[in-house]
Amino acid sequence: MNREVYLDNSATTRPYDEVIDYISEINRNMYGNPSSLHSKGIESEKLIKKARSAIAESISADPSEIIFTSGGTESNNLAIRGYLSANKRKGSHIITSKIEHPSVLEVFKHMEENGYRVDYINVDRYGNLDTEELKEKISDETALVSILYVNNESGAIQPIEEISGIIKSANKNTVFHVDAVQAYGKILISPKKLGIDMMSLSSHKIHGPKGAGALYVEKSIKIKPIIFGGGQESLLRSGTENVTGICGFGLASEIIFKNIENNYKKVELLRKTVIKELKSNFNDCIINSEDNSIPYILNVAFPYLKSEVLLHHLEEKGIYVSTGSACSSRKKVHSHVLKAMGLNSQQIDGAIRISFSAMNKEEDIKELIQALKEIVPKITIKSGGRR
Amino acid sequence: MNREVYLDNSATTRPYDEVIDYISEINRNMYGNPSSLHSKGIESEKLIKKARSAIAESISADPSEIIFTSGGTESNNLAIRGYLSANKRKGSHIITSKIEHPSVLEVFKHMEENGYRVDYINVDRYGNLDTEELKEKISDETALVSILYVNNESGAIQPIEEISGIIKSANKNTVFHVDAVQAYGKILISPKKLGIDMMSLSSHKIHGPKGAGALYVEKSIKIKPIIFGGGQESLLRSGTENVTGICGFGLASEIIFKNIENNYKKVELLRKTVIKELKSNFNDCIINSEDNSIPYILNVAFPYLKSEVLLHHLEEKGIYVSTGSACSSRKKVHSHVLKAMGLNSQQIDGAIRISFSAMNKEEDIKELIQALKEIVPKITIKSGGRR
Repeated sequence: MNREVYLDNSATTRPYDEVIDYISEINRNMYGNPSSLHSKGIESEKLIKKARSAIAESISADPSEIIFTSGGTESNNLAIRGYLSANKRKGSHIITSKIEHPSVLEVFKHMEENGYRVDYINVDRYGNLDTEELKEKISDETALVSILYVNNESGAIQPIEEISGIIKSANKNTVFHVDAVQAYGKILISPKKLGIDMMSLSSHKIHGPKGAGALYVEKSIKIKPIIFGGGQESLLRSGTENVTGICGFGLASEIIFKNIENNYKKVELLRKTVIKELKSNFNDCIINSEDNSIPYILNVAFPYLKSEVLLHHLEEKGIYVSTGSACSSRKKVHSHVLKAMGLNSQQIDGAIRISFSAMNKEEDIKELIQALKEIVPKITIKSGGRR
Repeated sequence: MNREVYLDNSATTRPYDEVIDYISEINRNMYGNPSSLHSKGIESEKLIKKARSAIAESISADPSEIIFTSGGTESNNLAIRGYLSANKRKGSHIITSKIEHPSVLEVFKHMEENGYRVDYINVDRYGNLDTEELKEKISDETALVSILYVNNESGAIQPIEEISGIIKSANKNTVFHVDAVQAYGKILISPKKLGIDMMSLSSHKIHGPKGAGALYVEKSIKIKPIIFGGGQESLLRSGTENVTGICGFGLASEIIFKNIENNYKKVELLRKTVIKELKSNFNDCIINSEDNSIPYILNVAFPYLKSEVLLHHLEEKGIYVSTGSACSSRKKVHSHVLKAMGLNSQQIDGAIRISFSAMNKEEDIKELIQALKEIVPKITIKSGGRR
């Protein structure tokens, strides 16, 4: 069997060794219920407090502004539904983009079924939000705008500060939620500086465990819970805390933020190499990520092949990439994101997402390029007439 | 420092060593996103499938009837709200008991605020449901009844099959949800035989990790999700699966069910010893658990002391017990369960819950009794006038 070349880091990441060991240690020795009155409970509560501080610090927020959830999906649900249910008089219009994660889009659909008017803003060829359209759509009735920080597929970084400015100058009562799952741990984000009111984070995208996430909610914003019970997380998220999930998340955050600049530079170099090699080896390939997009994501289309076939040939060599965002890749439908970016069917069919982490090495890139050189010519169907 | 004597197993349990190692192994080597198309994704998906089969088998259900959640609280929320939202025409009346977990009671309150009529059934001195009252309350309008299998505080086992019979003969369209969090892994439960339509389970009460749970939903029952997104768990629970949580839960279930009878006998003996020693050493103490309650829980009140003081003296000796269910113990209010059982303030103030697991040893019991003999006389305030 080949060495493993994992290039699907936007789907999920390998947890850090330190995180894996920390989880074991907590499970073995610090397994108390944080709600218990005795010292084993208090010990667990302290561990959570430490994690909360780490997450808060990483985004220059106050620990009281961090609510732990079961992941990014729940954070998005809690932000949007929790805010709207607590603020029914703030308007019946909500705005998002066409390239959001399903956990935002499906919530918007749900709100639409429940009487909200919804606008879905377009993006350009590389997945950048049409900020002019956003400006036109915001009204006195707009209760909330939710925008993805980094496009899952193309890596496009939205101009969050500009978007916040547009929103607040059009309607200062409109709250701004940002799904930062693909941005967090990769670029520095200060929601207070950027004018973000609520922000969703996920653990398993930053080498933390799956099953944990957080929602930042600016102090003055009122939201209601979407899961009811014992009143954990300041009454906003009931259920015995996932101590290992939360603490693994906290530790992963500490580690990744210590290395955030070096990681970025490293990954930038890796992506540059891939793009260079792709351009010099594959005339037909289309790079769907702009140079100024986040280097952790690279979307490339080989228009004369089926990306699923390419994916399987790559995995035979121990190389893992994606054909679309993981959470919708099992459904045999075209990526709504690539569609919104205006790619045609042929381009979407041939698109793969290569997503890096700082765990990747130059060697990985060499193996990827070598493999592509072998596989792509074999599986390409050149239909001259359609060129 | 003393050896640790953990007798708060109804709050949470120590994960099995095998579970801790399995979680590490998955985090280290099998960290794929189950939704990914490549073999690392498929590997994760298979692990979840294995866990689903284990949980299903443990309750004689079909794997398709198991939905994984983030824990018992979410399972209770999903069962009740998910069913009612999918079945709005099945009636506007719902029934539960006065001794439910907050994750049921708070959901009922929420439904009450949303137009449902709610009845809360009483219990007797030992926490057994008043089945006659239940019979009287069920009507053509009753959409759902939700009853706790095992009383968190007293260990009283509700006559689930009888309750199901009462419900179904009064209104065959009423669905029956059971919160089995404190029963699962301790007694054999077959929802199909018992006439249970939906049943909530939790991982961390059976030596699995925190942050995972399941909801059994009988095939013919339709429910709607309460968290929207990528459509995982047959569209009923979106969000990247907590693979280590789910798989740790599955493995814990396999281990505990292999030993369920021996565990029960062992714990039964431990509790009998404690009761015998309590009765012979403390004339005033009141046993709030009946002999036929689940042996894993023993509630005892020392009416002339404050249980919180006792708890702290015990923890100084490395012995951990609880003064009420963990999820409400931080709130300085009387346990609603003990109140519903008719205990007076003095008795509630002096009540501790000793909750066992098969990890406990005879030695633990000896240390507990020895400690109680030292501490109780020291902290008891005999106010003769009030006797």
